[in-house]
Amino acid sequence: MNSRLDHGTDALAPAAVAEALTFARSAVIAAGEIALRYFRQPLVVDNKLAGQAFDPVTCADREVEALLRGALRGQFPHYGVIGEEEGFTKGRDDINWVVDPIDGTRAFISGVPAWGILLGLVQNSRPLAGIMYQPYTDELFFGSADGAFLQRKGQVEPMQARRASRLEEATLYCTHESMFVKQAHLEAFRRVSAQVRLQRFGGDCYSYCLLALGQIDLVIEDSLQPYDILPLIPIIQAAGGVVTDAQGNLPVDGGFVVAAANPQLHAQVMKLL
Amino acid sequence: MNSRLDHGTDALAPAAVAEALTFARSAVIAAGEIALRYFRQPLVVDNKLAGQAFDPVTCADREVEALLRGALRGQFPHYGVIGEEEGFTKGRDDINWVVDPIDGTRAFISGVPAWGILLGLVQNSRPLAGIMYQPYTDELFFGSADGAFLQRKGQVEPMQARRASRLEEATLYCTHESMFVKQAHLEAFRRVSAQVRLQRFGGDCYSYCLLALGQIDLVIEDSLQPYDILPLIPIIQAAGGVVTDAQGNLPVDGGFVVAAANPQLHAQVMKLL
Repeated sequence: MNSRLDHGTDALAPAAVAEALTFARSAVIAAGEIALRYFRQPLVVDNKLAGQAFDPVTCADREVEALLRGALRGQFPHYGVIGEEEGFTKGRDDINWVVDPIDGTRAFISGVPAWGILLGLVQNSRPLAGIMYQPYTDELFFGSADGAFLQRKGQVEPMQARRASRLEEATLYCTHESMFVKQAHLEAFRRVSAQVRLQRFGGDCYSYCLLALGQIDLVIEDSLQPYDILPLIPIIQAAGGVVTDAQGNLPVDGGFVVAAANPQLHAQVMKLL
Repeated sequence: MNSRLDHGTDALAPAAVAEALTFARSAVIAAGEIALRYFRQPLVVDNKLAGQAFDPVTCADREVEALLRGALRGQFPHYGVIGEEEGFTKGRDDINWVVDPIDGTRAFISGVPAWGILLGLVQNSRPLAGIMYQPYTDELFFGSADGAFLQRKGQVEPMQARRASRLEEATLYCTHESMFVKQAHLEAFRRVSAQVRLQRFGGDCYSYCLLALGQIDLVIEDSLQPYDILPLIPIIQAAGGVVTDAQGNLPVDGGFVVAAANPQLHAQVMKLL
C-alpha cells in the first residue's frame, strides 16, 4: 500500500488519494446500512445544546461515526480522524479524515432523504477528496483531482456543474434563513435572492451535490461547521464549481459559504455580498 | 366490471373505489417512467404566466397527463378527468379523476426528488381515493377508506400519522413563505411557526405524505390549486390526520391548507390562526 509510505508535509501522491477514496466509498456504503436502520424509525433525540436550540443527535450519528472511525483507522492507522461526535483522533501524518456521520439531522428526523454521510480527506487544511452518500436514494457523490462522479445502482457517471448559468437565470438553495445569525449575512443572502430566477429552501448537503450535478446554480449558507463543508469542497471543485467564504477564500473553517456552478456566476454573487 | 354499472348520485361502492385505486396505482407507475426520462435532463421550460412569476411547465407534465388521461378514460370511460394541463373532460357520472401530472415542478427542475405524480378520485367534491407517486425514490403513497399505505420496492406497508404529537414538539413544513399571498395568512403561519419545535421549508406534496407516514406533524401552505390537494386528502385522512382550510372545512378548492397529524394538534393550530 503506497499510502502507508507517505509521511511528512509532502503532498499526498495522487495514487494514495485514489486508494483512500476507493476504500472510503466502500466504508460509507457500509455505514449507510446502519443509518437506514434508524431512518424513519422512532428515535431517541438528545439535545446537545441543553434547551437553547434544537440540535438533534441520534443513535445513527454515533453508530455511523464509530463504524467509519474503526474502518478508517484500521486501514490507514497513520491518518487522523476529525469527527462531529467524537472529536479529533490524531494520526502520525498531517493527513486527516473529516467525518460528519449524518449531515442534515433535521432532514433525517423529518423523514426527508436530503441528509447524507459526509467523509473527506484533508492534508493540513487542504481538501483532497470528498464523499456525500445518501443511502435511501442510493446516491453516492464523490470528487477529487480525478473528477466528480455520481454512483447509483452500480453505475458511476461523471458530473459537471452548469458552465454558463447567469445570476438572473439561477436557482439558489439555502437550508433555512435562520442559518444567517449576523444581520449583514442575512441581508447579503436576500440581495442575491432578489436577483435569481428561483430561490428554494431545504436541501442540506444534498444541495451542494445538486450543484455539482448541474441541477442548481447557487448555494449560500451560514453557520456551517468545518466538517459540514470540507468533504463537499472537492466534489464541487471537481465538477467545475467554485466554493468560498465571503472573502473569496476556501471555506475550510465553515461559517458563511457561497457555492456557485461556475467562476463567472461566483463573481456576480461576490459583488452583491 | 362493477364500477361501470354505477350511475347517478349514489355513493360509489367501496369495491368500485378499490378497483379504481388498483388500476390507478399501475397507471401512475407507468407514468412515472415517463417523468423519470425528463428528471435531471435538460428541459424546455415554458413560462405559463408570461413573465409575471416563474411557473415552469415541462414536457414531463404534458406527457404524464396525456398518458394518465388515455389510460383512465380507456378503463373508466364514464368517469371525467380534471387535469392541470388539459383541463376538464366531462364523464357520464358525477365521478372525476383529478390529475396533477408533476406536483412540485420547482423541485423537479431543481433535481430534488420531492415532486410527485398526484392522482385522485372524487365524487362531486368528495375525495374518495388518492395517490402520490415519487418514482425516483420509488415511493407510492395511497389512501382511501381502506387505509393509507406506502408501496416501495414491491412492499406495501400501512401508514399511521403521529397520534400524540403536541404543538410544542411538532415539526412544521411549508414549501416556501412566498405561498402566503395575504399578509394575514403569512402572520398566521408565523404564529404557528413560533410555537413548534422545528420548522423547515421545501417538501411540496412529499411533506403531506411524510405527515401520513408519521415523520412530521404539520403542513401549512397557501395558494394551492384544487388538484394540488384533492389527491392528498384521502391519504392524510386514512392515516389519521386532519386536513382543512382556515375555517375548518375540507379544502376541496385548494387555497390555504392546514394538515395535522391528529385532531388535537389540528385544534391547537386552529386556535392560532
